[in-house]
Amino acid sequence: MRYDELAELGQQLRVDAVRAAQAAGSGHPTSSMSAADLGAVLLAHHLRYDFARPAHPGNDRLILSKGHASPLLYALYRAAGVVDEEELLTFRRQGSRLEGHPTPRLPWVDVATGSLGQGLPVGVGMALAGKRLDRLPYRVWVLCGDSELAEGSVWEAVEHAGHEHLDNLTMIVDVNRLGQRGPTRLGWDLDTYAARLAAFGWHTVTVDGHDVAAVDAAYREATTARRRPTAVLARTRKGRGVAAVEDAEGRHGKPLPDAERAIEELGGVRSVQVGVALPVGSRPEETPKAAQVDWPRYELGEEVATRAAFGDALAALGSERDDVVVLDGEVGDSTKAGVFQEAHPDRYFECYIAEQQLVAAAVGMRARGHTPFAATFAAFLTRAHDFVRMAAVSGLGVQLCGSHAGVAIGEDGPSQMGLEDLAMMRAVHGSTVLHPCDAHQTAYLVRTMADLPGIGYLRTCRAPMPVLYGPGEQFPVGGCKTLRSGPDDKVTVIGAGTTVHEALRAADSLAVAGIAVRVIDLYSVKPVDEVALRTAAEETGCLLTVEDHRPEGGLGDAVAAVFADGRPQPRLVRLAVRTMPGSATLKEQLRTAGIDAEAIAAAVMLLTERAVTP
Amino acid sequence: MRYDELAELGQQLRVDAVRAAQAAGSGHPTSSMSAADLGAVLLAHHLRYDFARPAHPGNDRLILSKGHASPLLYALYRAAGVVDEEELLTFRRQGSRLEGHPTPRLPWVDVATGSLGQGLPVGVGMALAGKRLDRLPYRVWVLCGDSELAEGSVWEAVEHAGHEHLDNLTMIVDVNRLGQRGPTRLGWDLDTYAARLAAFGWHTVTVDGHDVAAVDAAYREATTARRRPTAVLARTRKGRGVAAVEDAEGRHGKPLPDAERAIEELGGVRSVQVGVALPVGSRPEETPKAAQVDWPRYELGEEVATRAAFGDALAALGSERDDVVVLDGEVGDSTKAGVFQEAHPDRYFECYIAEQQLVAAAVGMRARGHTPFAATFAAFLTRAHDFVRMAAVSGLGVQLCGSHAGVAIGEDGPSQMGLEDLAMMRAVHGSTVLHPCDAHQTAYLVRTMADLPGIGYLRTCRAPMPVLYGPGEQFPVGGCKTLRSGPDDKVTVIGAGTTVHEALRAADSLAVAGIAVRVIDLYSVKPVDEVALRTAAEETGCLLTVEDHRPEGGLGDAVAAVFADGRPQPRLVRLAVRTMPGSATLKEQLRTAGIDAEAIAAAVMLLTERAVTP
Repeated sequence: MRYDELAELGQQLRVDAVRAAQAAGSGHPTSSMSAADLGAVLLAHHLRYDFARPAHPGNDRLILSKGHASPLLYALYRAAGVVDEEELLTFRRQGSRLEGHPTPRLPWVDVATGSLGQGLPVGVGMALAGKRLDRLPYRVWVLCGDSELAEGSVWEAVEHAGHEHLDNLTMIVDVNRLGQRGPTRLGWDLDTYAARLAAFGWHTVTVDGHDVAAVDAAYREATTARRRPTAVLARTRKGRGVAAVEDAEGRHGKPLPDAERAIEELGGVRSVQVGVALPVGSRPEETPKAAQVDWPRYELGEEVATRAAFGDALAALGSERDDVVVLDGEVGDSTKAGVFQEAHPDRYFECYIAEQQLVAAAVGMRARGHTPFAATFAAFLTRAHDFVRMAAVSGLGVQLCGSHAGVAIGEDGPSQMGLEDLAMMRAVHGSTVLHPCDAHQTAYLVRTMADLPGIGYLRTCRAPMPVLYGPGEQFPVGGCKTLRSGPDDKVTVIGAGTTVHEALRAADSLAVAGIAVRVIDLYSVKPVDEVALRTAAEETGCLLTVEDHRPEGGLGDAVAAVFADGRPQPRLVRLAVRTMPGSATLKEQLRTAGIDAEAIAAAVMLLTERAVTP
Repeated sequence: MRYDELAELGQQLRVDAVRAAQAAGSGHPTSSMSAADLGAVLLAHHLRYDFARPAHPGNDRLILSKGHASPLLYALYRAAGVVDEEELLTFRRQGSRLEGHPTPRLPWVDVATGSLGQGLPVGVGMALAGKRLDRLPYRVWVLCGDSELAEGSVWEAVEHAGHEHLDNLTMIVDVNRLGQRGPTRLGWDLDTYAARLAAFGWHTVTVDGHDVAAVDAAYREATTARRRPTAVLARTRKGRGVAAVEDAEGRHGKPLPDAERAIEELGGVRSVQVGVALPVGSRPEETPKAAQVDWPRYELGEEVATRAAFGDALAALGSERDDVVVLDGEVGDSTKAGVFQEAHPDRYFECYIAEQQLVAAAVGMRARGHTPFAATFAAFLTRAHDFVRMAAVSGLGVQLCGSHAGVAIGEDGPSQMGLEDLAMMRAVHGSTVLHPCDAHQTAYLVRTMADLPGIGYLRTCRAPMPVLYGPGEQFPVGGCKTLRSGPDDKVTVIGAGTTVHEALRAADSLAVAGIAVRVIDLYSVKPVDEVALRTAAEETGCLLTVEDHRPEGGLGDAVAAVFADGRPQPRLVRLAVRTMPGSATLKEQLRTAGIDAEAIAAAVMLLTERAVTP
């Protein structure tokens, strides 16, 4: 396209953004207008994308990190001929694919955006996949706003990309100097942005974002830079092209005051169509390797930490399946994800102490078709909560492992204890939450996770525990194991992880006292085995949950939810961690928290006494 | 102290770190040893701190951001004469104040650390308080590890401090080049660290961290730099002083292999005592202003969004109390925190789009005795989850407001919807979770929050709702309001926020059909009003919860937990958001999620039919 045609295309994108927001009665036209020329040049001259085949492995990726500028993205799709005028005007309506912020409901959108500061971190994951896994020459383009550069997650990504020399990654920053409620910290100070990025190893180009020739040259420069990611820092004006709103405060996130006049001022409705370049290079269709692998075996009664079994299983899974990749938050020796590194160094990604980037990179790799497992301490996964939430909005199957769960870590104290992780992970839409108590169980669940469609979470523990199950045992998602059961059971004790072993000890001591209890290992915390729980409730009349977690949002809530169906309920009791722990040994911690065998036995005594004399 | 004495003190700190870890059988001596000289010079020559009066307003603040190096901190306390040898050797034992990672159980520790990358962000909050609120010349010293500079939260803080010209803040970075599982990305490349920090407006000094004279000069330079925070980048060696572990990999987080020999190598046990300089300047004891303030009043039936009422109430509270400060994540026009800014610009802190820093700054201000309210979208508070968790470990009362809760935000779509926030906030230890449905209720709760001892969370909604309560009504924490009640109630419908209004509509339509239901406004989600819920259960036999939140961790779980006490339970049913929403109007969203009046009425019909024919 000639530069005057590109400028025309930019105006068309503005007009379409104005029209979409006008039709919706809401949306962000001014944030779209500042980036319109940046989008026009990208679509017409640089993006390599087969819109008819969004799954083409050689396609460039485009992430609109400033997701509120969705009208621009949809206008680009119209220019590319895949969204028509009628659909454009369904923007933000119920049932429309053109949501307020982009989601993968549209086939050309890989990941949902709208929570700022996520596009670049995810783009880094895709660019890493391009270089180290797919080995394809596609390029990842991320269009960011300037406001979102205040998010620390962006700087985690900037460091990661610089360190990994991701020259297949281009960040375009639409520096329109205005955030939601006023000017950004840096305004149009492009040089300071450039200095910051350069200090992290990036190549930078500063450019007038409304000069299509200059933007074209900047993108060309980005595609030719070697061993460094490039940031195109573009000085733009919010609401560009319409005097009533251009570079004006108080115009964020609103349709234009007079859309008809604005469209006229922008030169009216156009229908320029862009012939987008097709991707170069492809990958031969490989049948995924399905090797015969010897899975680790453990002896019954042997003491094995579930985190250790996780590491072993991950390494075996990596031998079995080529698509499995592992990401570490600089604690691979603790989570035991590092065991995978020894076996499969080419599919192991060190993300250092940057949990948002850890999860975001996994999301990016998943969007490229790989099967990522990301691991850190359960406590520190809280850092990545928003990334997990958004991955669920994207509908992507990302597998997470949180180690060092609960007070059972011992001396390290509360800062290192995952005590809120079940609550966090259960509330994620479509998630699967697993908490094994045994090495074979852990291995089985790890293998299962690789095929989960949504977010999977495996909660592992620091300390060794006796192996309870044989290597052939099956542990389906949504199942449970009944470890003790008899016709005279008075109470069902339900545990997971550490507390299963405490429950067994309690059952043994209660048996001596002549009190029979059922024990259930509820390794699948979401979904739970409703049938088994209901049967146990009917047969024993009382369920006692025991968890190394806060009383809110964990095992106790999961069990109670089964009975929230309007039918009469069993008696329920829960033991959980209700105090703030300090340093202490594992034994002392469990005792102080009131979740050890003695506490369970005492609770059962109380309940059975009450059962006798109601 | 002479430099040779300082060097001796450094050796003493090393020896004490080795001894403490040895006694505990765990801990991080090598991470302590690298920073020992940095600590020695700080304590003896630069820190101004009255150890007898930790609450002295003029005291410098010292944050050990690399909290795992707690043995160093405790060794410093021994040198300062406030921890004796006997207590030092209780490190990591149950009941000891010397926990694995420091907590405010020790009077000289302001905030718990151990989750890396939190010290500097909190320190920025303290330094802001020093400059803009306390107006005292105290200095904030933050001792960081090099690994933790990979955390994005550190860069949020770096930008914040640079932008605010915090020359009362010094970050000391112990660049020992070794993380937990191996070398850091940058190793000993101090120049690159310096370039990065300089690009964010910091003054930097690079120094040999084992040359006490050079460190002394660097600190002096830091205290004299004007209008810029200073970073002292110190090249150090992990395990310094003991050949068997010095600068060696695989020695993280373990006692030394031969402690006795190491102590000998370090010159043996010493008992140097340091006379720490006392703080300069103080603040006259002010009686907090308790002004007579006219609180906003609304008409019954008037449509007012709870977020708007939050803004109004916050401004009134700010007039009533001098200690209240407000922090915004660049959405003050949406959360309505911005209303406070107009009334009290000097106590309003713009943190831009950096939610970790938003909460961390609030934590720092709370630690300095102020009463912070931090507000952003409920969805984006997930970014700060780990900071909220750690604030709870610190036992600090920080008040949070999450706006735009639930699908009721309408067209913006799932990325902007807080649907997991109740689960997140309920699981925080000692938290109070409030979700008002009315303007006067919101105002009352805001006023109450200012006196909460722990984390408080107020969940507000975007859309206007009719005012239900008069201005004189009281809404205690742990209470609820029964809005409809009669002797023939068949079911109790329990809502909060948006769903209270849907429940009322349902009750009205059911009344027409001859079905009486009780309606409870459960504005206090944690703690819940157990007495009222139990009474309702006894009187109506069935409780139906309705929430604009995921089914896990929210209102339904909170109500169910009341009945997990081993006694017979009522019938429970819950309506919640079980699908992934798209864009749609408020009405459409509530309908699609199945939480509107019609869904409630349908559920009640079903339940009452079943009640008639069991």
